[in-house]
Amino acid sequence: MTTQEGYYACGDRPLQEGDLKCAGVISPRGNIPSVSYEIFDVIIIGAGYAGLTSARDLCLSGFKVLLLEARDRVGGRTWTAEVEGHIYEMGGTWVHWGQPHVYREMSRYGYTKLLDSNADKVGCNYFTSWINGKAKNISYEEVGPAVDRAFETYCDIDGNGGKTIMPYPHDPHFNPEAKQWENISAAQRIEQVRAKLNELELYTLQSFVAAISGNDMNATGFFDVLRWWALSGYSTQGLNDYTETYKIPEGQSRFARTMFDEALATGNLKYAFDTLITSINDSSKAVEVTSTSGQKWSARRLISTIPLNILDRIQINPPLSPAKFAAHSIQHIGIGAKVHMEVKGTNLRTWSAAAWPDSRVFSGRGDGITPSGNTHLVFFAANKQGLNAQEDAQDMVAEAKKLHEMDIKKVIWHNWLEDPLAKGIWCMFPPAYSFNHLDALRERHGNVLFASADWALGWRGFIDGAIEEGTRAAMAVMKELGFLRRVAPAL
Amino acid sequence: MTTQEGYYACGDRPLQEGDLKCAGVISPRGNIPSVSYEIFDVIIIGAGYAGLTSARDLCLSGFKVLLLEARDRVGGRTWTAEVEGHIYEMGGTWVHWGQPHVYREMSRYGYTKLLDSNADKVGCNYFTSWINGKAKNISYEEVGPAVDRAFETYCDIDGNGGKTIMPYPHDPHFNPEAKQWENISAAQRIEQVRAKLNELELYTLQSFVAAISGNDMNATGFFDVLRWWALSGYSTQGLNDYTETYKIPEGQSRFARTMFDEALATGNLKYAFDTLITSINDSSKAVEVTSTSGQKWSARRLISTIPLNILDRIQINPPLSPAKFAAHSIQHIGIGAKVHMEVKGTNLRTWSAAAWPDSRVFSGRGDGITPSGNTHLVFFAANKQGLNAQEDAQDMVAEAKKLHEMDIKKVIWHNWLEDPLAKGIWCMFPPAYSFNHLDALRERHGNVLFASADWALGWRGFIDGAIEEGTRAAMAVMKELGFLRRVAPAL
Repeated sequence: MTTQEGYYACGDRPLQEGDLKCAGVISPRGNIPSVSYEIFDVIIIGAGYAGLTSARDLCLSGFKVLLLEARDRVGGRTWTAEVEGHIYEMGGTWVHWGQPHVYREMSRYGYTKLLDSNADKVGCNYFTSWINGKAKNISYEEVGPAVDRAFETYCDIDGNGGKTIMPYPHDPHFNPEAKQWENISAAQRIEQVRAKLNELELYTLQSFVAAISGNDMNATGFFDVLRWWALSGYSTQGLNDYTETYKIPEGQSRFARTMFDEALATGNLKYAFDTLITSINDSSKAVEVTSTSGQKWSARRLISTIPLNILDRIQINPPLSPAKFAAHSIQHIGIGAKVHMEVKGTNLRTWSAAAWPDSRVFSGRGDGITPSGNTHLVFFAANKQGLNAQEDAQDMVAEAKKLHEMDIKKVIWHNWLEDPLAKGIWCMFPPAYSFNHLDALRERHGNVLFASADWALGWRGFIDGAIEEGTRAAMAVMKELGFLRRVAPAL
Repeated sequence: MTTQEGYYACGDRPLQEGDLKCAGVISPRGNIPSVSYEIFDVIIIGAGYAGLTSARDLCLSGFKVLLLEARDRVGGRTWTAEVEGHIYEMGGTWVHWGQPHVYREMSRYGYTKLLDSNADKVGCNYFTSWINGKAKNISYEEVGPAVDRAFETYCDIDGNGGKTIMPYPHDPHFNPEAKQWENISAAQRIEQVRAKLNELELYTLQSFVAAISGNDMNATGFFDVLRWWALSGYSTQGLNDYTETYKIPEGQSRFARTMFDEALATGNLKYAFDTLITSINDSSKAVEVTSTSGQKWSARRLISTIPLNILDRIQINPPLSPAKFAAHSIQHIGIGAKVHMEVKGTNLRTWSAAAWPDSRVFSGRGDGITPSGNTHLVFFAANKQGLNAQEDAQDMVAEAKKLHEMDIKKVIWHNWLEDPLAKGIWCMFPPAYSFNHLDALRERHGNVLFASADWALGWRGFIDGAIEEGTRAAMAVMKELGFLRRVAPAL
């Protein structure tokens, strides 16, 4: 099965949109009987990990669930393209056994054979920095301690590596003294430590903080970078282990598909893909949703997993509270690009690079060997305005070649910023956002519950956060409607 | 409600067994109709976290479950005594958001306000070492780096802090080169690094490795200590954060009770406490269990959560395979003691100590302030043979007083080694055990599945490992009997 999403350019072949093989594409596209009219227990908008988790939990307990998804596949901002026998994770990728919600699911389904992104030892084994317009290759023995020292300095706001200010990153109110750090940007914190860092430390820090942000660091709350640091155990080794080392060898789409299949096996799941919801109407008796084609469905509860950056596109009645409206009206700032390339040979397997702000590339690295014996590179980069897809691919190729000689065979990516169902990559908050708006984002609205990685308490913006939120929403529904549904619901 | 378990001595009052207030005690003790004969879908032996997780998952999906527990409470090797408004965790205690299975449950139930064991800043703020028969108080500024360096040296078997040899601690076969480290004991590894350590480093290392082991380090596999290190992110800070920092303020017994209550709310849970099972008979059609009082129950599947060290006490027919028998015939070596004391005043709140091998005490530390304004201390110590409970309490008091002046008001503990339902504390494997026997421990035996923290892949011996295993067993049953039970089962 192939999806209509993603871009793929191969050698001299013209750039192509969609038609990429993906295990997350579901066939048939729907299983709702067209003649019957049914009141569901729960309607779930979105078949990303949050929606899949809610659907699975509720179906397992006998609830009649309708899952509606605008895309042609499960996984939301996470999906796997399979090209010539190699998997490319187009969005969410890396997982870790210390990410509780995703690892619990991996463990439960037996996805416990992990792939270590750093396993292969072949190739050049150096790091390329881009400072003052020049590429320079540096040994890991030199750059490793520089990055350590840079991040340790950046995050050491309390003489204790950030641990005194943020001992428990899930709870923004755990330590009231943390509030003073909430208002500054990631860039402002760079200025506070700039004088303490040498050139290599400063440039690698800027690149990697921008890579975490997916944005110019002026837009990024320092607090959200500090949260990644704290969640990773307050070390660069932890940041590396948690956020860019371990992959599911079968690919995320197969894993997501496993959750969908379990829900389906209960007999309680109705679903429709290619189905975009434009409005939600909540009466005290039921919630009704309407699709672009005018179809309507009703349920006792609704779980919306619509991401933060497109929440303003759906019409909700009765209107949201002022607090929720204020929260929704500010978007998260994760708007970077993730671009895969296949390059000839294995020399770049142990290569990595950081090149921002003098290049569009935040960071890049070898991430695997393809069946044809070439290297799979992954880049995180700033989005460039005003380019069409063809120009964007050419521009990224040029940027990559500036950093290192490489013979590029393929370019594969998903333009998340232009994706009308995402309008961004992983969630990063601007300064002052989490203290002021996180609670409101998490609030329900009558019979409508909101579940998204974008307002998770733990690994916000990660697969783990999506599963955390899907679990929370399902639990809330079960507490209200009973822990096990036995009979068809009657309104 | 009070439990019959645990010991409590207070001032001049004689030592008392049981009668400690515990939220995990269930009333009524059973809900099985005595006249009806019912074939269950699943019988679960043991209401610790493994059994509770299996029961909860299966009941939520409509399975008819019978939960049988020999104790008078839920929680197994984890329970909370409440004495004069303060909680004492008698077994499993500390949790962390990077322990996936327990944190997923905490998050799901909303137990996300954590208590930081190190939060209070009052008191002496030093560490006491016991070297060559003398107590010496040392600042944390001095001892912290010593412990760091000692553990880093001890675990650095590959020039990469253990990370090259053990990149993924859940899978003993992940790196074949790890096998060479499986055969040595924790004590043998001490000998390999002894010359590299100064006196303070050596003594603190010996104490803390013995505390992790709950035993003389000769009996302990080095590999299992290395697993704690790897699971904790390869740092002493991580070891501290993961294994002795964050508690559930409501107490573990309330948390365990929440899982039990959710299972009960489905209407699918029958249970009996004070019910010890002595034999399991598996025919191809059903599994039958028999209690000490001769009661018999049958089910399509059985989940046994009986701990490793008492598995040899249950009769299983047909007999276990030679591989399983070989695994069960070797016991785990975690046989230490955990002893709570309340001491007058707040001076010892920020005190800690390590005193092994010259004292019986592995380690001790302030763990909270009681409502009467005194300090709660917790000690981990070697079990002393041949003492009755009264002598044991007196001996521990004498040992503690050797380390530091203290006015002891209460002593509270559970003698896990003498407990016929545990015969040990947390699971630690002897050398060469995990490569040779772990897979066999995890195997099923016909219709009988085995689930225990003692053979978890991740946080083995922890609450997290128990929930991992309970999840695995429930999933295996659901895969066989269907993901949602709709009708009463027929054999």
